Order: sequence, then C-alpha cells, then structure tokens
Amino acid sequence: MKHYEGYLIDLDGTMYRGKERIDEAVDFVKELVKRNIPYLFVTNNSSKTCAQVADHLSEMGIPATDDQVFTTSLATAQYIAEEKQDAKIYMIGEEGLRDALEKQGFTIQDDDVDYVIMGIDRDITYEKLAKACLAVRAGAKFISTNGDIALPTERGFMPGNGSLTSVVAVSTETAPIFIGKPESIIVNQALEVIGTPREKTVMVGDNYQTDIMAGINAKMDTIMVHTGVTSKEQLTTYTKQPTFSIHSLSEWKFV
Amino acid sequence: MKHYEGYLIDLDGTMYRGKERIDEAVDFVKELVKRNIPYLFVTNNSSKTCAQVADHLSEMGIPATDDQVFTTSLATAQYIAEEKQDAKIYMIGEEGLRDALEKQGFTIQDDDVDYVIMGIDRDITYEKLAKACLAVRAGAKFISTNGDIALPTERGFMPGNGSLTSVVAVSTETAPIFIGKPESIIVNQALEVIGTPREKTVMVGDNYQTDIMAGINAKMDTIMVHTGVTSKEQLTTYTKQPTFSIHSLSEWKFV
Repeated sequence: MKHYEGYLIDLDGTMYRGKERIDEAVDFVKELVKRNIPYLFVTNNSSKTCAQVADHLSEMGIPATDDQVFTTSLATAQYIAEEKQDAKIYMIGEEGLRDALEKQGFTIQDDDVDYVIMGIDRDITYEKLAKACLAVRAGAKFISTNGDIALPTERGFMPGNGSLTSVVAVSTETAPIFIGKPESIIVNQALEVIGTPREKTVMVGDNYQTDIMAGINAKMDTIMVHTGVTSKEQLTTYTKQPTFSIHSLSEWKFV
Repeated sequence: MKHYEGYLIDLDGTMYRGKERIDEAVDFVKELVKRNIPYLFVTNNSSKTCAQVADHLSEMGIPATDDQVFTTSLATAQYIAEEKQDAKIYMIGEEGLRDALEKQGFTIQDDDVDYVIMGIDRDITYEKLAKACLAVRAGAKFISTNGDIALPTERGFMPGNGSLTSVVAVSTETAPIFIGKPESIIVNQALEVIGTPREKTVMVGDNYQTDIMAGINAKMDTIMVHTGVTSKEQLTTYTKQPTFSIHSLSEWKFV
C-alpha cells in the first residue's frame, strides 16, 4: 500500500448500497478525517445538488460537507464555463443539474441554444426529447452528464442517463460528449477541486467500468473495492488492473 | 419496365408529403384500380390503425380500403401470433399498435409478460421505459415495430421509434427484433396479404434505406421514386441498386 495525499471516492457501492451504509467505508472516511487527509466524493449522480448529497451522507453518519461532494452536474457546468461563459443552454435533467447550471449563470431556454445538456430525468417526455433533437440538429453542442446505462433500485435496474441520452444520439446521429466517470473530464476537475497532485491522489470505487476506468483514463492510481458492482472474479477478466484491489476499505492500511 | 401482378407501395414521400398529396402517385394508383392490379400500402407508421390510414388516404382522394393498408403494427401482431398465440405483452405505443395487438387477442399487461413491444409513443414516460427494461431483463422477448430514427414533421425531424427503442436496447444491452422496413419481416407478411407471387410483385418507395432495402432484403423487385427522401444523386452512392428508378410514378409505363 502507498501513502496518498488525497482520495477521490465513489458513493453508491463504495460508501453505501441503496439505503444501507457500508461500515468499513465509513470507518475509512473517519480515519481520513482523523489524519487530516483531503477527500472528495465523486459521483455520476446528476439528479441531486451537492448539498442534498452531503445531507444524505451526513444522515448516514458519513462525514461530508457540501464542498466535499463533486457531482457530474457540477463537472458539466464547469466544463461549459471553460468553453463559453455566457452559454445559452437547453437542458433535460433534474434539480441537481438545473442548480449547477444556474449557479454558473447560464441562461436556460428552449430554442436558439449553444448547448444541449442531458442528465437523468425521471419526468422525461417526448416533447423534451424532441426539443433536444431539434436543437442538436440546429447545431447546438451535445453534452451528457454521464453514460450510465442502468440505475440500480429496489425494483431492479432502471434506465440510466446513458440510455435516455441515446434517444437524441440515435435520432440526430450525433455522439455526445460524456462528462462523468469513466471519462477523465470529471476526474481532472475533481483533482483541481481537491488540490492534491495527480500522482499523489487515488480514485476509490466499486465499479470497474466507471470508477476504476475513470482513474485509469485520468492516469492516476486506483483502489478497487468489492463491496458493490464488480466482483473479484469479474476483475480478473480485465486487462488493465487497478493499482490496488481489496475486499473492503477495512483492509486499507495507511502507510 | 416490367409487368407486375401486385404492388407494395410506401406512403409518406411516395403517395404524399406531409399534408400534400403527390398527384402522379394518385394517378398511378387509379390506374392500378382501372387495371384491376392488386396493391397494398405498406407503412412503418405504427401509431394509426389501418382504418385510420385508409380514411386519411381516402380524404386525399387516394383509393384505399382498410385491407389495402398494412401497418407495421399489424405485421408485429402477426409476427407474435405465429410464435405464441396466447402471448402476454407489455407494450409502449399508440392506438395503432394497441388496436393491432388487441385484435389478435393478446393480453396486454405490465408484468410477467412474454414480449415487450415498442412502437412510437408521443406520451412516453420514464415509468413506461422502466417497465419495459424490467420486463426485458426478466426475460421477455424484445420487439420493436420499426427502427426509424427520425420522423419528418413541420417542426423538423422529431425522435422516431428507433431512437425511443434505443433506451431499452442500451439499458438492457439487448438488441430488439425490428419488424418494419427495411426488415424483410413486414414485406414477407405483406406478400402473404396481397397474395401475388414474390417474383411478380414489386416494392415502390422513396426512401432507399427503408423501402428499397426492404424490397432487396425480401429478394423482390423494387421501384424507387425521387419524390421524397432519397435524391437521384444519393442513390448513385449505393452499391445495390433498385430494379427501376424513376423521378415520379407518372413515368411508370404499364406493360
């Protein structure tokens, strides 16, 4: 094991599973607090604001302030701000995305937009999708908060934002820019927020294809935990391996 | 030109463009009536019943009875009936699809289904898509009325059924069986309905990638008209050419 100055940590499957917190992970974060090591929760969830996520974590007894949460909505807003500060945006998404875009000062409108942004929207309608298609065909840049194809819920796997995004991608024959994990975009921004050097920061997560690949794509170290999506057996099938692979975060030794 | 005993004819772009009928095509159909040559309108539109389509054609002065219209909804219902007569179905779609499935006597329900059928649904919701995903993951066979990615309207190109279908296909990582053009499934069924031999029947349409490819896939002759989607210039870029290519149906000489 290795000493890291900063930790980027996934949420679902790493800190909790649905409504159940993962005690080993909570103890691990408490140890980070004790040792005064910076950490940032990095999530593909675009539906909630950072404050809502932090509140949810606090309720579960996981130490988290608003600015220790970095959502893909925040990363998306940041990404656009770097390209065009006064962007006009048509968005499909929930409160977290709207909040992030509004806080950046963008104008959100239906027509004549520079960007079409898609995040998970459980109030999706044909009209919303139609407007997105028309705007992309009219030349707006097409961005999606994340490509997750499915969301685990108590009912089973529900459609994720990546699958909703495919309506506009398929209809307009335009590939979107994805911001969230496994893309390096969100990780590079998270590194700027946490402020620790890339080579001394590590990405922690349970999902090989999002968390671990995000770390690999961003050329940083990774710690894979088997408390969520990817099993130890599945992990052996991948060519690129994480830097560390442990069953749960109780196995992590600070050095 | 060649003598054909039966004609399978596309609608949008071939018989009319939006609300405007194509006079040369109407004269052509009247000539078919006069010569007592069977014809069947074959459409990827799953939203309307055959009766509604026939009424619409009649209003435009195009001779058509209900049983001279063959929609992809009808083809879908027929396809399932051949596989499982007492099928339980979860459907997403509009009146045309529901009508076709109900007339086949299928049970339409939310859970515990044999098939998930998707047709264009301009009242699409996340819950409808979620139910489809859950059913496909539970093992239901996944069928889509057609793969059209976009629908031409006065506002521009709106999302077609192929793009809505992609939500479930992407989320469940399951490719659907498509029924409509360019698949041969709908054409083979239309040939049974019209009752003329494949080698003496011809497919007429304006869209190379749906109508003409459907004819080619079904190994029958094709007549391409340039009154709709595919221009004469675009046609030259394709390897497999239609049997005949004419500007409009007024050029067709009966022999």
